[in-house]
Amino acid sequence: MHLSELSSPKDIKDLSYEELDVLAGEIRQELIQTVSQRGGHLASNLGVVELTLALHRVYDMPKDKIVFDVGHQSYVHKLITGRNHTFQSLRTFGGIAGFPKRSESEYDVFETGHASTAISAVLGMARARDYLKQDYQTIAVVGDGALTGGMCYEALNDAGSSKTRLTVILNDNEMSINRNVGALARHMTDLRLSHGWSSTKERVKSGLRRVPGIGQKVYRFVHLSKGFIKSLFVDEGFFTSLGFQYFGPIDGHDIRRMEHTLRLAADFDGPCIIHVLTRKGYGYDKAEQQPEKFHGVPPFYVETGDSKSLDTCPGFGEVMADTLTEMARNDPRIVGITAAMLLGTCLNRLEEALPGRTLDVGIAEEHATTMAAGLASAGMRPYFAVYASFFQRAYDQTIHDVCMQELPVIFLLDRAGLSGHDGETHHGIFDFAEVLPMPNMTVLAPRDLQELKAMMQWTANADGPVCIRYGRQGIDMSGSCPYHGFRPGKWERLTQGGDVTILAVGSMVTAALDVAKRLRALGFEAEVVNCSTVKPLDEDMLLENALKPVVTMEEHMLTGGFGSYVSAFCTREHLPAPMLCFGIQDRFVQHGSRNQLLKYLGLTPEQMTGRIAVALQKRNRRKGGHT
Amino acid sequence: MHLSELSSPKDIKDLSYEELDVLAGEIRQELIQTVSQRGGHLASNLGVVELTLALHRVYDMPKDKIVFDVGHQSYVHKLITGRNHTFQSLRTFGGIAGFPKRSESEYDVFETGHASTAISAVLGMARARDYLKQDYQTIAVVGDGALTGGMCYEALNDAGSSKTRLTVILNDNEMSINRNVGALARHMTDLRLSHGWSSTKERVKSGLRRVPGIGQKVYRFVHLSKGFIKSLFVDEGFFTSLGFQYFGPIDGHDIRRMEHTLRLAADFDGPCIIHVLTRKGYGYDKAEQQPEKFHGVPPFYVETGDSKSLDTCPGFGEVMADTLTEMARNDPRIVGITAAMLLGTCLNRLEEALPGRTLDVGIAEEHATTMAAGLASAGMRPYFAVYASFFQRAYDQTIHDVCMQELPVIFLLDRAGLSGHDGETHHGIFDFAEVLPMPNMTVLAPRDLQELKAMMQWTANADGPVCIRYGRQGIDMSGSCPYHGFRPGKWERLTQGGDVTILAVGSMVTAALDVAKRLRALGFEAEVVNCSTVKPLDEDMLLENALKPVVTMEEHMLTGGFGSYVSAFCTREHLPAPMLCFGIQDRFVQHGSRNQLLKYLGLTPEQMTGRIAVALQKRNRRKGGHT
Repeated sequence: MHLSELSSPKDIKDLSYEELDVLAGEIRQELIQTVSQRGGHLASNLGVVELTLALHRVYDMPKDKIVFDVGHQSYVHKLITGRNHTFQSLRTFGGIAGFPKRSESEYDVFETGHASTAISAVLGMARARDYLKQDYQTIAVVGDGALTGGMCYEALNDAGSSKTRLTVILNDNEMSINRNVGALARHMTDLRLSHGWSSTKERVKSGLRRVPGIGQKVYRFVHLSKGFIKSLFVDEGFFTSLGFQYFGPIDGHDIRRMEHTLRLAADFDGPCIIHVLTRKGYGYDKAEQQPEKFHGVPPFYVETGDSKSLDTCPGFGEVMADTLTEMARNDPRIVGITAAMLLGTCLNRLEEALPGRTLDVGIAEEHATTMAAGLASAGMRPYFAVYASFFQRAYDQTIHDVCMQELPVIFLLDRAGLSGHDGETHHGIFDFAEVLPMPNMTVLAPRDLQELKAMMQWTANADGPVCIRYGRQGIDMSGSCPYHGFRPGKWERLTQGGDVTILAVGSMVTAALDVAKRLRALGFEAEVVNCSTVKPLDEDMLLENALKPVVTMEEHMLTGGFGSYVSAFCTREHLPAPMLCFGIQDRFVQHGSRNQLLKYLGLTPEQMTGRIAVALQKRNRRKGGHT
Repeated sequence: MHLSELSSPKDIKDLSYEELDVLAGEIRQELIQTVSQRGGHLASNLGVVELTLALHRVYDMPKDKIVFDVGHQSYVHKLITGRNHTFQSLRTFGGIAGFPKRSESEYDVFETGHASTAISAVLGMARARDYLKQDYQTIAVVGDGALTGGMCYEALNDAGSSKTRLTVILNDNEMSINRNVGALARHMTDLRLSHGWSSTKERVKSGLRRVPGIGQKVYRFVHLSKGFIKSLFVDEGFFTSLGFQYFGPIDGHDIRRMEHTLRLAADFDGPCIIHVLTRKGYGYDKAEQQPEKFHGVPPFYVETGDSKSLDTCPGFGEVMADTLTEMARNDPRIVGITAAMLLGTCLNRLEEALPGRTLDVGIAEEHATTMAAGLASAGMRPYFAVYASFFQRAYDQTIHDVCMQELPVIFLLDRAGLSGHDGETHHGIFDFAEVLPMPNMTVLAPRDLQELKAMMQWTANADGPVCIRYGRQGIDMSGSCPYHGFRPGKWERLTQGGDVTILAVGSMVTAALDVAKRLRALGFEAEVVNCSTVKPLDEDMLLENALKPVVTMEEHMLTGGFGSYVSAFCTREHLPAPMLCFGIQDRFVQHGSRNQLLKYLGLTPEQMTGRIAVALQKRNRRKGGHT
């Protein structure tokens, strides 16, 4: 049975362990090939090949329900649940998503993307099963990193007391442990060491064989005499104090042994946790050696592991981090904070330059925000760099702990706007709607790298909370459109034009300049304004422009966004409303390249030019009719 | 030294234990008297009298920084930090707040209101101290209830690995334990029992005297030989696995013994947790017997404990719960969810009528929401009843787990609008801004109890997520304005009038009818519309009304609220913008009675009538000028 012949996970149930080994190799081959072409999450998927096979052999999907926490490690699951022939379209527009999607397959029972949700979801399913008197198993696969998120604890606490039957697979991979922050990580390391796992290589080679009493025969015995379980498996303080039966640790690359433990746990009538040890990047040496680099990768050359990208412009995150580092050298109050995104946010640059000045708090955006408020209340100036979509986790804390006390916490929202191939869960398109209604918050969006740098420098002495949002891909306008310095609350006129004013935010400033050029070709002169301070609005500029039709442009939901904010201001001041607001309609946005998505949403310069021109022509005709 | 003579907490440092006992009695007297007149949190404050005194004796406030989690138990702290003479103004407009407020006192170093934030805040302060090379202590006082919130765990995990010096006081009161949900609560009960605490009464009477080795002399010894601590105090799995030094449990009504342990912990150079046992309502028999009733109370008669309120109209929560109970009798898919607010949301009515059909998940709004999504994905119909301001915690989960998968989870947002005397942290005035930008979400707000009932019934077959927001105080319009049934997406015209259309939401519908009457007296005829579906807007009705001036009214922030949503629609459809939008300007709102706050915000019927009349007159003059 080859990967190409698989039609459903039932096909793997009868394979021998030798055949499974071959299949696992083919799966790894497919993962490496496809991700090297499409980009995506590689190391984590290479690590769960055997685990996913074992799960599909023991459980009866989709009757039994499995939820992958975070979801970026569901590629193997996708390959063996009927998507082996379409997998090459991974993360492309219209193709297979990089995360579980219910619309793709009945085997994807719950969608994930942000960390630490799976145990909650699975507890809900388990309770639904009990209420509706049905019979199936529910399984959450959770990485040790996700376990630093408070939601997991809330769910473990509730599940542990519920006595409901559910299984949590703790996928504990060395990379994550090594880098993982927090006391629990250290505690799990102790756990491993206490069982003789002195080094990973040894573990992966020898598996559990060295632990006495976990051979096949002993399992059978245990199966008959459950009272023996406790003495056989680790009875560990943290999980057992939360009411879970704990099994493990077991070798996550040994299908046979995992199957045995999974079957044993499947018979346990209550909440249980199975601690599985895996190795990120397993089977591809480049990824094993640099699991962080191969966590999420752009297309790369398989032989060398080098990126295919030729982009030389630094990203916004890099410029943010370098600027912050320069500022921190002279200002001991400055400290960087990340929620388990040291590399993603580029704060590793600050940490490398000034060790100890960056705090990595784990996947814990809520705690990060209130901890930042605590720092600020005691005289520090914390900069919390976080992906815009993960910042959604800190909504209450931002209102309640930061804005209400008017504390100078600086939020650096990275990956704002369309995130591209990661899709729905990762677009940062709700952040303006979040922060604009919060009193005391200043909201900024730089047009390019120069402006981000200027904004960063300004924040060093800001009086209250500030939020700066930017995308991943750097924009350098220094050649085409020189920058003259940042003044908070003051917008920047980039072109003059009497027919229409384009108010553009952040990434849309370059698009607006393009639109202005296209409009000129059609006979319209546009004034392009860089609205780098979104809150407070530059009210003077808005009042000055009241006589010209106004268009707004943003890479954000229309509802609650910049255009809505301008509309509400115009309503209040009895100014004419914007003629057109460009942004994202009331829908979630799938994955694809940023350009494909912009086109899908009608937000390319060409499309926007067309709509503006039509509106201006209509308006001129109307005017003509009136005179 | 009497309470009235206290000028700062330094005054209590030299008191004898006999004098402290007298002072504690006076403080209890003051708490009971003031809360019986002003309403507020009683039981929790009666429980922490001795603990607060002990903390102020051992620590040097405000140099040392103390943060009360949730903050409603900070009354004693207020009384001994210079607010004893103004305490009688508790929770009144312009008076002392029911929660810590930095503007009130330098002793209030960090504001709280929502649960589970204190450890994060205190860790931030401790780190700031270390960065800035200062020297002071940071202390978080956290109830066992708050410990069910995931943020606490995120903070404990980070603090435990940081090795930073900070102290967490775990204020463990029996009431909360008894009612507390979750495995950890059970675990803490075990902890107590393992130390011979078989019953609370016995504990409170005998204190810790029965535990061998915790006399004063032994402390001195321990102080010299720290290695002995572990064997002396409980070395408990949960906290120690998170890296904390654990001290306890100790009697929270014995100042002398608490002082000793606090001083011992103060010398410990790292994160430590002190487990203190207190009794809610201690010293006032009514509150001891019914600690839940006296958690948060309206004004009451001290002798009987009976409420002074004469209100006979049921609240929105009661009608919600009774309707849900009726629905659940015939629909096995229905399940109620609360995040530790069983009484507050009235879901106790569902639980009493149909035991097992309500899930109390602890102070865990995030988990509650994703667990609800799990339930819905597996065929159930979950109703999550939650205070609007606490719902802010579930922002990301509502987008990511509910709306993105279009799951039929029903959010019942109680205490929406101005919450009155609880003030800033408790007003529910951001909820429209939260949910309106979320695709797939239906947003409803009933004008009165009849409409809430009709909406509830409609939700039983809704296709996707629904959010219903309502205030605490019930509104019964059945006498004055008969109800004709709920049609989602269709607004209800309550009065006819050609001069102005008033679009009113929820609690503002009765105000709008009042405004219409007042306008009639001034010669203007107003059409009042009950906009019970906020999303989707009734676009037909908006288009029909395009020729008349429109006014919007909501008890919500203007930014991101109903008025902004209508303005954005008008912008898109090129309709005239609303003439006026009534709502809350860009500021946080203090505490006071709802009527006082409405007046402060310019939202009384009289004030709104005035502004509408002026605007209409101006408009008529302008029109007159044109003709």
